Amino acid sequence: MIRFGVIGYGYWGPNIVRNLEQLEETKVVAVCDKSAASRQRIQRAHPQVHVTADHKELVSSPEIDAIAVITPVWTHYELTKSALENGKHVFVEKPFTSNVAQAEELIDLAAKRQRKLMVDHTFLFTGAVRKIKQVLQDGTLGKLYYYDSTRVNLGLFQHDVNVIWDLAPHDLSIIDHLIQESPEAVVATGQTHLNGHEDVAFITIYFPNNVIAHINVNWLSPVKVRTTLIGGEKKMLVWNDLEADEKIKIYDKGVDVTNQEGVYNLLVNYRSGDMWAPQVEQVEALRAELSYFARCIKQDEVPFNDGVAGLRVVKMLEAANTSLRQRGAMIYLNSADSREGVRLSKLPPTLANGPLVASTGT
Amino acid sequence: MIRFGVIGYGYWGPNIVRNLEQLEETKVVAVCDKSAASRQRIQRAHPQVHVTADHKELVSSPEIDAIAVITPVWTHYELTKSALENGKHVFVEKPFTSNVAQAEELIDLAAKRQRKLMVDHTFLFTGAVRKIKQVLQDGTLGKLYYYDSTRVNLGLFQHDVNVIWDLAPHDLSIIDHLIQESPEAVVATGQTHLNGHEDVAFITIYFPNNVIAHINVNWLSPVKVRTTLIGGEKKMLVWNDLEADEKIKIYDKGVDVTNQEGVYNLLVNYRSGDMWAPQVEQVEALRAELSYFARCIKQDEVPFNDGVAGLRVVKMLEAANTSLRQRGAMIYLNSADSREGVRLSKLPPTLANGPLVASTGT
Amino acid sequence: MIRFGVIGYGYWGPNIVRNLEQLEETKVVAVCDKSAASRQRIQRAHPQVHVTADHKELVSSPEIDAIAVITPVWTHYELTKSALENGKHVFVEKPFTSNVAQAEELIDLAAKRQRKLMVDHTFLFTGAVRKIKQVLQDGTLGKLYYYDSTRVNLGLFQHDVNVIWDLAPHDLSIIDHLIQESPEAVVATGQTHLNGHEDVAFITIYFPNNVIAHINVNWLSPVKVRTTLIGGEKKMLVWNDLEADEKIKIYDKGVDVTNQEGVYNLLVNYRSGDMWAPQVEQVEALRAELSYFARCIKQDEVPFNDGVAGLRVVKMLEAANTSLRQRGAMIYLNSADSREGVRLSKLPPTLANGPLVASTGT
Amino acid sequence: MIRFGVIGYGYWGPNIVRNLEQLEETKVVAVCDKSAASRQRIQRAHPQVHVTADHKELVSSPEIDAIAVITPVWTHYELTKSALENGKHVFVEKPFTSNVAQAEELIDLAAKRQRKLMVDHTFLFTGAVRKIKQVLQDGTLGKLYYYDSTRVNLGLFQHDVNVIWDLAPHDLSIIDHLIQESPEAVVATGQTHLNGHEDVAFITIYFPNNVIAHINVNWLSPVKVRTTLIGGEKKMLVWNDLEADEKIKIYDKGVDVTNQEGVYNLLVNYRSGDMWAPQVEQVEALRAELSYFARCIKQDEVPFNDGVAGLRVVKMLEAANTSLRQRGAMIYLNSADSREGVRLSKLPPTLANGPLVASTGT
Repeated sequence: MIRFGVIGYGYWGPNIVRNLEQLEETKVVAVCDKSAASRQRIQRAHPQVHVTADHKELVSSPEIDAIAVITPVWTHYELTKSALENGKHVFVEKPFTSNVAQAEELIDLAAKRQRKLMVDHTFLFTGAVRKIKQVLQDGTLGKLYYYDSTRVNLGLFQHDVNVIWDLAPHDLSIIDHLIQESPEAVVATGQTHLNGHEDVAFITIYFPNNVIAHINVNWLSPVKVRTTLIGGEKKMLVWNDLEADEKIKIYDKGVDVTNQEGVYNLLVNYRSGDMWAPQVEQVEALRAELSYFARCIKQDEVPFNDGVAGLRVVKMLEAANTSLRQRGAMIYLNSADSREGVRLSKLPPTLANGPLVASTGT
Repeated sequence: MIRFGVIGYGYWGPNIVRNLEQLEETKVVAVCDKSAASRQRIQRAHPQVHVTADHKELVSSPEIDAIAVITPVWTHYELTKSALENGKHVFVEKPFTSNVAQAEELIDLAAKRQRKLMVDHTFLFTGAVRKIKQVLQDGTLGKLYYYDSTRVNLGLFQHDVNVIWDLAPHDLSIIDHLIQESPEAVVATGQTHLNGHEDVAFITIYFPNNVIAHINVNWLSPVKVRTTLIGGEKKMLVWNDLEADEKIKIYDKGVDVTNQEGVYNLLVNYRSGDMWAPQVEQVEALRAELSYFARCIKQDEVPFNDGVAGLRVVKMLEAANTSLRQRGAMIYLNSADSREGVRLSKLPPTLANGPLVASTGT
Repeated sequence: MIRFGVIGYGYWGPNIVRNLEQLEETKVVAVCDKSAASRQRIQRAHPQVHVTADHKELVSSPEIDAIAVITPVWTHYELTKSALENGKHVFVEKPFTSNVAQAEELIDLAAKRQRKLMVDHTFLFTGAVRKIKQVLQDGTLGKLYYYDSTRVNLGLFQHDVNVIWDLAPHDLSIIDHLIQESPEAVVATGQTHLNGHEDVAFITIYFPNNVIAHINVNWLSPVKVRTTLIGGEKKMLVWNDLEADEKIKIYDKGVDVTNQEGVYNLLVNYRSGDMWAPQVEQVEALRAELSYFARCIKQDEVPFNDGVAGLRVVKMLEAANTSLRQRGAMIYLNSADSREGVRLSKLPPTLANGPLVASTGT
Repeated sequence: MIRFGVIGYGYWGPNIVRNLEQLEETKVVAVCDKSAASRQRIQRAHPQVHVTADHKELVSSPEIDAIAVITPVWTHYELTKSALENGKHVFVEKPFTSNVAQAEELIDLAAKRQRKLMVDHTFLFTGAVRKIKQVLQDGTLGKLYYYDSTRVNLGLFQHDVNVIWDLAPHDLSIIDHLIQESPEAVVATGQTHLNGHEDVAFITIYFPNNVIAHINVNWLSPVKVRTTLIGGEKKMLVWNDLEADEKIKIYDKGVDVTNQEGVYNLLVNYRSGDMWAPQVEQVEALRAELSYFARCIKQDEVPFNDGVAGLRVVKMLEAANTSLRQRGAMIYLNSADSREGVRLSKLPPTLANGPLVASTGT
């Protein structure tokens, strides 16, 4: 039985607490929130849980094995650091940290203290993403061509971050999980209309082998859209996460181009066959993720959504943000930042205000 | 009665001929196509029309008042020039020309010969775009925030141009028509997978006053999408051109942000009211456009979709293409190219055969 | 503060308890369920509530003002009767009773004991039905032509009743609420495929003034559908209850037929204008209904969804069932059963245990 | 080369003429229409065709092998009879005739004159219905449970027939084609609101082996719907004919009910697997049908959509109409009217033994 302390009981925290309570292998010992109203809500819903305003009580408690950090991103670094230093395992809300340097430090710290660090990339545990991962891995789609996601809705405007930091981490963690390649360059464009943070943004990520990813995020859309197109050489996939029953549709469609003696003799052949909507597991993703976290702790496994995965996402976020601030400047990502677990170098100081194309990691 | 010669009877030509035949104010005298099969098709469908393989017969015929150039873009310049030099009015397929220099030369020539030059921006004559124009003009949407279009489908791959030159002219002509501002900068990203031309591309266009436009074009999508989101301060609009009956939906939705003593006291207020799908005229857009062309000739009016409008679109296309080739380099558009009807200043000589404008990061 | 005892904690009961707990004007004193597993669930979720297997404890408790009967339909009569006899107000699940005679007896008993009797016609409290009621009442739709509902999905098969008793009460209560006329005749067809109860059924109800209602219910549909068309003389409405945001669409469409000198000179004129999706209140219907029940008790009002409303629905159910058993025989409903608030006359004695009324053609 | 005369050039006639002209094995010699405007339209579109107002010219012409009767239903009997008597093959618009007696006489006449008689049940030649037929025949769906079609839209009101005679023949011919059983009884309900003909109607048809069919037809719907649910023991199918690309979806869904010691121990098991949208042939159905007619003539084959098939549809129409006029009276269809090609016996004057049943054809 892994005993949890949960810091933060705002929008997402109640789901964390509920799932940790329902799982057999975990329990919640204490919950902390700065807001008196939130503390009242906890107490009413979970009378048996210790409630406090002081997160130090949790990180220092000998009754607690693991801390869940479910707070705004700008607090993740301090809280996670404090928990790790006190020898706790940490489950931290996405995005992992506010910048690359913080993420690297926390990864180091977790390694040194031999604690598990998991970043809450919940979508990776949905039936939909698991099915997509499967059809990519088993070759159903063939060579990947592109990933193109539209994730738009009205609000919720954040006070401290723009629409990229709010909505793009979902797609970035999925892209990182599916594509399994190091991104080469990021271009982000967007615009601010209301509160000083960009509320509309478009991110392009170039990957090796002509793979391209695109993410359209928008807080000012009258309609909610959660649709991703994934094109492959053999088949193509549409994932509509708002569909109740047929979230994933796989199209037996494709194009073959045969180059015959020069450009004006291209033979283009369109193939169009059946469509197929595989059944998708109907699990609560967060429950599966927390159960996996408990297993990683108990069996000393490295979670695939560990700090390093969190760092890869933060790196893309940071690059996108830098590009966005410069109206679409191209940001090259250091090819040395391989996914193979090599140590990530520090960012140069010039990054913040330097020429359009400073690379991260150099 | 305006007498037409039509050059090109491939995919779009038959629609031009049919409409010119049906309108009372126009008739088709002759049609030209290099393909024998196409000529047979013409003759079968329109036995009374003169058919030829030689476009010079048409441009030099005294029986013909106007030429419709319905051929691939790389032929537009030569054919339009030849027609204007022979004193014909010209209706030319979009995109107007392959580059800015050609467009400027043809505009000059038409002015000198006092002939009408119309670029076939058909979408501007659809009931949908006319309704959108109206609700923007009458203030229903309030200040414009963004235009975001997704125009994707499987194929049809073109031999001579990439997906931007094929699909983006529609949105660019609509954006030009709706926004009525000079674009400041263009960023385009994309990727090539099959025949050497980009088949997936994403274009961002920055306009003054925080207006931003985005176009997603894709020849490798398993599903056909024709959806545009338009966000305004007061209301927001979704245009789904694939809907048979409710193409346009206007949402009484919005966000008000009140800044009260610092960023952490922002008051965000979401407004959500009725949705309204105004009836959209069910006219054949091409018919309306050709009728308008005949009227402009007869009454000596300047069409709003004239060569200058065509040039503005070509300019954005050229900038997008240049950006795309540099993986998203930002291309600034010359602010001197105002829309105020003043003669468009010549672009710097480097433009024709080099990167449009200095790219990012140099 | 109205103190409740809740009998039945299966599928719907937890929602009743949760809402009664959350409302300020009500509280739950005790809950009863025969299943030990259900009693455990109650105790875990609501530790402060008394839990028992014996409903008599509840109906006889002086600590309880009102009983909610949330059990299978065949138990409603006994439980409600017992509660009324003990001087409790009763909120009873739909459908009210298994037959007309039971409903009439309970109505009489409630009147005699001066207790409130409310039948849980939850849909009447949804934002959607309230909006539909409003546009019918304010004349927006004009004279009503028809109500046509499709309510189909896969399962859930019931052990004790057929698909009509399971799914049709929703539409029947809505029809009763909207049409405000006494039905003249009912025809129901359907078929049994699996467990001896009809799993597919179609009900037609004839109302005065050429108003017709039709309900399509089906437990064997691969897709879930909850769509109702409502046609009026001036406008027409589509209610799709599965839409998250635009549940109701009102079409400015209609047909005018002018009879000019005989049938072959009919002038048919189709009118087609805007569509409009009014915003619909996003309340939890059950909460609103329970709050209304508390108000009716406190202020001694007669609820519009009282036992008499419940009886009208049971009457249509019983007629539909009788028709169904005779493969679509027409069942006339007693015209003496007016809605004008007059005491409903007894049905002929044959009703209870024989075919409801003479079949068609007589 | 089969030479056709076409009688009737209203809404559907032009499609007949165009297809007969395009097919290699057929040609149109003459077209007849009583309306001068229609005759002008023919002449303009098909200058080489003889045009006349007198159908006798066509049926008596030695230049003509086959007559297409594309006129209102009340004229079918006279025109078809006249054509058959003159030794022509006949392709006749659906519904075949106005009543059963006419259909039987024409079948006899065609047999006696050894001419082909085909009823235009176009839908049977669509890719969608062919695919449905295939998955029923190859056992994919398992035993058939039900066919439930919704076919509603705004207008077009007919002068001479009600909505059943206008819209239901499509479904009735499909049902006849798919179910391959003799219907046992028909119940139809509906209502008249405007011009004296029913504009809303609901038809239930009982078939042997617990198969049930239901058709919802409506001229007063604000939205166009063309959706059919088909339930089988193993799989279920949804056919949405308005979908451009995925008209047919097959759901691996089902319900198994195991009866274990009495009704309260039923074990209901819901199975839910993948969905699959098989590619559907994109042919023009009418072209395929006319080509098949030509083949039947040339190779002396009996078309499956012959007069006898037409009669089976008329019989259901007549029964539905009779039921409708009696507000849903059940009409039994004579079980002697087997599908096995045996001569259809006359219906007895009193169909069964009660007033329930008014007979067809008397």
